[in-house]
Amino acid sequence: MSLVIVGSVALDSVKTPFGEVDEALGGSAMYASMAAKNFCRTRIVGVVGEDFPQQHLDLLASHGIDAQGLARVPGRTFRWTGAYSDLNVAETLDTQLNVFASFKPELPDSYRKVPIVFLGNIDPSLQMRVLGQATGAQTIALDTMNFWISGAREKLLEVIRKVHILFINEDELRQLTGERNLFAAAARVREMGARWIVVKQGEYGAMAVGPDFLFFAPPYPLGKVVDPTGAGDSFAGGCLGAIAEAGGLSPSGLRRGMLYGTVMASFNIENFSLDRLATVDRTAIDARYAELLSILRLDSGSL
Amino acid sequence: MSLVIVGSVALDSVKTPFGEVDEALGGSAMYASMAAKNFCRTRIVGVVGEDFPQQHLDLLASHGIDAQGLARVPGRTFRWTGAYSDLNVAETLDTQLNVFASFKPELPDSYRKVPIVFLGNIDPSLQMRVLGQATGAQTIALDTMNFWISGAREKLLEVIRKVHILFINEDELRQLTGERNLFAAAARVREMGARWIVVKQGEYGAMAVGPDFLFFAPPYPLGKVVDPTGAGDSFAGGCLGAIAEAGGLSPSGLRRGMLYGTVMASFNIENFSLDRLATVDRTAIDARYAELLSILRLDSGSL
Repeated sequence: MSLVIVGSVALDSVKTPFGEVDEALGGSAMYASMAAKNFCRTRIVGVVGEDFPQQHLDLLASHGIDAQGLARVPGRTFRWTGAYSDLNVAETLDTQLNVFASFKPELPDSYRKVPIVFLGNIDPSLQMRVLGQATGAQTIALDTMNFWISGAREKLLEVIRKVHILFINEDELRQLTGERNLFAAAARVREMGARWIVVKQGEYGAMAVGPDFLFFAPPYPLGKVVDPTGAGDSFAGGCLGAIAEAGGLSPSGLRRGMLYGTVMASFNIENFSLDRLATVDRTAIDARYAELLSILRLDSGSL
Repeated sequence: MSLVIVGSVALDSVKTPFGEVDEALGGSAMYASMAAKNFCRTRIVGVVGEDFPQQHLDLLASHGIDAQGLARVPGRTFRWTGAYSDLNVAETLDTQLNVFASFKPELPDSYRKVPIVFLGNIDPSLQMRVLGQATGAQTIALDTMNFWISGAREKLLEVIRKVHILFINEDELRQLTGERNLFAAAARVREMGARWIVVKQGEYGAMAVGPDFLFFAPPYPLGKVVDPTGAGDSFAGGCLGAIAEAGGLSPSGLRRGMLYGTVMASFNIENFSLDRLATVDRTAIDARYAELLSILRLDSGSL
């Protein structure tokens, strides 16, 4: 099965207690696709400006990521500048939307029958537009953020009614539902129409709630986090890639996806930008996956 | 195997968004023993004043808890008044130590050969005193709090060198080690001499770290928490009780203990004071334990 990922492509300037990078490759579509490509054919939809370095396009090509849906338009590429003093909280110092401000996602014909679609964190109106184009989608996954939950709530609820998996962090889940208790909040989102909810809990791991389904993915035990940027996106990309590899969304496929998502996020946060995701191979990925299974006292067949 | 629990006995006045109680039975020794008694013979060491209601002593007796080590001395019983607006954070409104201020724990002769000892959150000097009396102890577990970590650090480190299991919450762990990363912090405490660390993470569950050992207990999925007071103590009591039932500290015994501790804490926080712990029976406990195993895709034998 293949996967379409719609999201941002950015040049990120990031400072953490362990160093900094200037205008490095970033954005949700980049993190998610570099995680997913280890498991399935991965196609991206996004937009960059004329200043987008050719080397980044070459990187995508060298990893077999289909960038036919990555539009290059007049203007400058989206830029984000952020800093972390506490590694759990990103502080945005500057956002320049540039060409991303007028992004109108357009799926190439070759993408339209792809069975799994990940709607990264963009305007819910644009997410809806993608749904109208992705006529072959059997599984639709959604990410969002506080900005849309407060600013485009009705449209977002419309999208939520149509999706199969919602990826959301705890604060966003509480904001969306008004519920402090995570289990009650997840139940509320299921009433809103999302069939499966994956709650990203950072250093605590992740929780998935679905029909007669509850699963907790533990965090991968990293003693040092260098840069948390893209953790949620690499988690979602790894999760959906593994679901695609497993033949589609199922309880065991989602459990497998949660663990592979955890592994991909753990690699990602070991270095800045996509540096670690670009070098890790399937052998190293599977070694961490096996470690998680061992911590859980499970074998792959019992997931 | 039997268990000795040393800790506070209090009359608690507590207000939460779901109600309030006035001078209700509380204290770490009460929560821990009412959780542990479901699994093993449980003996307590503590102190109360002349005003301590007989009905509370009758309650302990009716649950088979050995209160020979509970001294009754002139003066008033320890009182704590607290409130929760956010159910994750207790706000202390008033503390009256009363007879607890001059508490000198004294193990009755019949307690001194007991194999498992839980040193509840009291002055590390007193914890050390108990260790001198508990000459038969094979497994020593410790709880502490921020007040002792900052105010009696050297003495506390001396106790930590002697204990087998440290129960600690995340903030205390970070305060003790100066490490923000939980895995690095747990490793640091193991260097200090504690063999096993159980990190209590509230709504995220609990993590245990030991020699070649890592385990995560998920939270029990409760949609509503009425009063979190005593959650950590009932967790520790349930955990140690189950370890005693399993024949002592071992990797599988600790995993089992973490899950039973989670179950006991989940019952405790469903109501004020010891109301729920006093009515729950082993059948209900084992039903929740089985639920946790099912969420984890495990059977009891594979722990």
